[in-house]
Amino acid sequence: MSSHIKAALRQFLNADEIIESAPQWLTDQRCRYSGRADALVQPKSINAVQQLMRFCFQNKIPVTPQGGNTGLCGAAVPDGGVLLNLSKLNRIRSINLADNAITVDAGIVLQAVQQAAAAAGRLFPLSLASEGSCQIGGNIACNAGGLNVLRYGTMRDLVLGLEVVLPNGELVQHLHPLHKNTTGYDLRHLFIGSEGTLGVVTGAVLKLFALPKTVETVWVGVDSIEQAVALLTLVQGVFAERLCSFELAGRFALALSSDFSRIGKPVDASWHILLELADSMESGSLGEELAELLLAHGFGNAVAAQSETERRVLWTLRENISAAQRNLGASIKHDIAVPIARAAEFVAGCESALQTAFPGIKIVVFGHLGDGSLHYNTFLPGVSDNGVYEYEDAVNTVVYENVLACGGTVAAEHGIGMVKKQWLPSVRSAAEIALMRAVKAELDPHNIMNPGKLLP
Amino acid sequence: MSSHIKAALRQFLNADEIIESAPQWLTDQRCRYSGRADALVQPKSINAVQQLMRFCFQNKIPVTPQGGNTGLCGAAVPDGGVLLNLSKLNRIRSINLADNAITVDAGIVLQAVQQAAAAAGRLFPLSLASEGSCQIGGNIACNAGGLNVLRYGTMRDLVLGLEVVLPNGELVQHLHPLHKNTTGYDLRHLFIGSEGTLGVVTGAVLKLFALPKTVETVWVGVDSIEQAVALLTLVQGVFAERLCSFELAGRFALALSSDFSRIGKPVDASWHILLELADSMESGSLGEELAELLLAHGFGNAVAAQSETERRVLWTLRENISAAQRNLGASIKHDIAVPIARAAEFVAGCESALQTAFPGIKIVVFGHLGDGSLHYNTFLPGVSDNGVYEYEDAVNTVVYENVLACGGTVAAEHGIGMVKKQWLPSVRSAAEIALMRAVKAELDPHNIMNPGKLLP
Ligand SMILES: Cc1cc2nc3c(=O)[nH]c(=O)nc-3n(C[C@H](O)[C@H](O)[C@H](O)COP(=O)(O)OP(=O)(O)OC[C@H]3O[C@@H](n4cnc5c(N)ncnc54)[C@H](O)[C@@H]3O)c2cc1C
Ligand SMILES: Cc1cc2nc3c(=O)[nH]c(=O)nc-3n(C[C@H](O)[C@H](O)[C@H](O)COP(=O)(O)OP(=O)(O)OC[C@H]3O[C@@H](n4cnc5c(N)ncnc54)[C@H](O)[C@@H]3O)c2cc1C
Repeated sequence: MSSHIKAALRQFLNADEIIESAPQWLTDQRCRYSGRADALVQPKSINAVQQLMRFCFQNKIPVTPQGGNTGLCGAAVPDGGVLLNLSKLNRIRSINLADNAITVDAGIVLQAVQQAAAAAGRLFPLSLASEGSCQIGGNIACNAGGLNVLRYGTMRDLVLGLEVVLPNGELVQHLHPLHKNTTGYDLRHLFIGSEGTLGVVTGAVLKLFALPKTVETVWVGVDSIEQAVALLTLVQGVFAERLCSFELAGRFALALSSDFSRIGKPVDASWHILLELADSMESGSLGEELAELLLAHGFGNAVAAQSETERRVLWTLRENISAAQRNLGASIKHDIAVPIARAAEFVAGCESALQTAFPGIKIVVFGHLGDGSLHYNTFLPGVSDNGVYEYEDAVNTVVYENVLACGGTVAAEHGIGMVKKQWLPSVRSAAEIALMRAVKAELDPHNIMNPGKLLP
Repeated sequence: MSSHIKAALRQFLNADEIIESAPQWLTDQRCRYSGRADALVQPKSINAVQQLMRFCFQNKIPVTPQGGNTGLCGAAVPDGGVLLNLSKLNRIRSINLADNAITVDAGIVLQAVQQAAAAAGRLFPLSLASEGSCQIGGNIACNAGGLNVLRYGTMRDLVLGLEVVLPNGELVQHLHPLHKNTTGYDLRHLFIGSEGTLGVVTGAVLKLFALPKTVETVWVGVDSIEQAVALLTLVQGVFAERLCSFELAGRFALALSSDFSRIGKPVDASWHILLELADSMESGSLGEELAELLLAHGFGNAVAAQSETERRVLWTLRENISAAQRNLGASIKHDIAVPIARAAEFVAGCESALQTAFPGIKIVVFGHLGDGSLHYNTFLPGVSDNGVYEYEDAVNTVVYENVLACGGTVAAEHGIGMVKKQWLPSVRSAAEIALMRAVKAELDPHNIMNPGKLLP
């Protein structure tokens, strides 16, 4: 099969668009899922993508689109067929300052877009720890979130126009920077977040914003999540859209990162908040105003960054939590969101339910409290590395039931992929899933686009 | 037929939920389209909406949802069956400051939501001239835009959660304030902008923002659209998200409004810009900084509002353009958008094409240049009132061909409705329209939801 496919691909792909071997593409970055592919391709033109899809459609060959392969739910791992890596479709097509928009190929790395925007005096605000390797197409396909969602929204909010090759090879091209366009059902938003199951994103028009001219970064210790939420409401009430990031870390999460990073804790507290204000204009007084507000409302257990170096130190502490927790061994991770007003109830309720079911379980809680999304990672004491996965369903059940009881979601920013398919019916009704299947069947009647992902 | 239906409705609707006569619901507000209905209902509960839909689904009776009936493309005018007016589902359900969200019934009037938000110290930013009578459900169904899209987006950007009764009576309820939720294809955005053809919106969770504490309003005269766009780029480069409104009016449009409003023109110029900055914090210097910037860059033909009264006068001049142009008689109107970078090219090209085809044609151009959407209204000299509609197709063809040549859209903020169905294939491919039909067929197999609208 494999050699047949490759021979056929050579008819419309150049030699350097067909890759002999790339094992790193067949396993996800957490090394939890491995797949196989009959052919690995890296087309350099949209036309090549179209011809590929036409061929695969006619021959009912599965296609798995792949960006930076940094996704965390196994959505880019192939199960036979063609692995379509987008890395060579990586140009900036144009920047348009009147419309505040940038048009790019889907295979461009997120950081390259941030840099091109900055070079034009603008901000592209999507920011995640994987920004050095994840791609715009992957960000669109998973509706990526990250650190600035509070102010700028998720990828869904940042896409103005989209270019997609459909499973049958047809090109749908809406590469415009229009902010108002009400012409029938909005199909752009179907592709955003569809995890490669409806078509191949080849290009996009993205929103740009002003670069910040003033940035104030403060680390605040609080006693409880209730206090953290009160702080969020207070700061938002005064500084409004200037609040860009409002990150939470539990005492245990911070201790791990502090040890790992060899950086002392900025303050001692049960819960830690890293908050950042940004203003697109110069402001001499923003930092002082923030400091006064915190003091006046009893948030005195706080440290403000006095320089860019100090700011980087605070962010390093926050960003290293993920890496630091690996020292505890394998974990069962959850990418969840709850209404902010119910975050405290969720954290208390879920911890007590987990401790009852799994006495001694360790919980690392951190995340983007400002937009309600949390990384909720659990470690089972005395269970050796891959042994934890035996308990995965049981732990998930406790966590997700608590999430759902608080009106939250089981997938905040990483998507469904392979990992959470069985949980989709708990957040979407049968009628909704039937509608998803109808959409899929219309665009992809032979089920060749990333089969086995997203839909249960 | 009519009496049969009414008798059946009485089984599950209260007497005051069935209306005997309401001719104003059967004609659109421009009096261009009139329809008929076998029954007029105004349910007071979601349960009643569900029972109604179940009954109509079983009996294949058309249902036309209607909000404030302020839409401008005939989308809420019924053609038999049941006219479902949402006005009595009009409660504020809750306000949640931690999540910055308000939950409302769909039949609530937009202004009531703005007021409830303000009473809680927050801004609900959607603002249109019809805000005193249009409803949230209507705003969602047409993806309304208005004056603040530049900063806050259209209705699509303001909806966090949605509650919909499907054509078969099933309730799909996602009334959460989550900012991150990536669980399968996004169906919320299918309903937003679907003009009542996929289901009945009964409730929504909407985003709230900080109230502005500083507002600066300036009227600037410029010589050309190119200059207007340069001004936009300049102001946005310095004041960024503080720029909320950037409205354009041509010399002729302004003269009409000035006469009609008995308000002198603020400045004499070929093109007029009304721009407004807003800051969520107090700022003593914003107005001065703006004035200096304008002077320094040669935009000295400008007047700044010195008081709220002066500000209201400037806005009245802008808002009265619509009413003022009625003195010219019936017009052929266009609700279009083009990339801002191509607005000048569009305005020049379209005017010259129209003058060639219809010598002496008068063009009233105004709109939301800051987001690229324009009202482009044409008056044929010597053609008496309804006579203009004979020329509608011919005028539309010239205008829309020019719009499309500039990468724009034939429907910016009013939707497709009855008026623009034949133009849908010029902005959406056959594959996209087939996908829309598949979505419609899955949810509404008997085609009972607002039949005859949106899809050609
Ligand atoms: C250290 C680290 C930190 C992270 N932090 C965050 C975070 O804060 N917020 C967040 O949201 N995510 C985060 N992620 C996960 C995040 O989803 C990815 O980083 C990113 O969005 C995926 O992009 P990618 O190019 O790597 O996609 P891949 O992993 O290659 O693919 C992901 C999915 O998208 C599909 N896909 C990729 N490209 C295309 C295309 N062109 N057309 C159609 N489908 C396509 C794939 O088929 C797959 O379904 C993090 C990951 C890591 C490793
Ligand atoms: C003076 C004036 C100025 C305007 N300015 C603007 C502007 O600046 N920007 C702009 O975008 N629009 C503007 N509009 C038009 C705008 O579309 C409407 O004002 C508004 O969004 C429609 O709301 P409505 O409640 O009146 O809807 P309706 O006219 O009653 O209905 C419009 C459509 O929505 C559907 N619908 C209504 N309620 C529901 C529901 N609950 N569930 C499902 N479907 C439903 C109807 O079936 C119909 O298809 C203006 C209109 C006027 C008269």
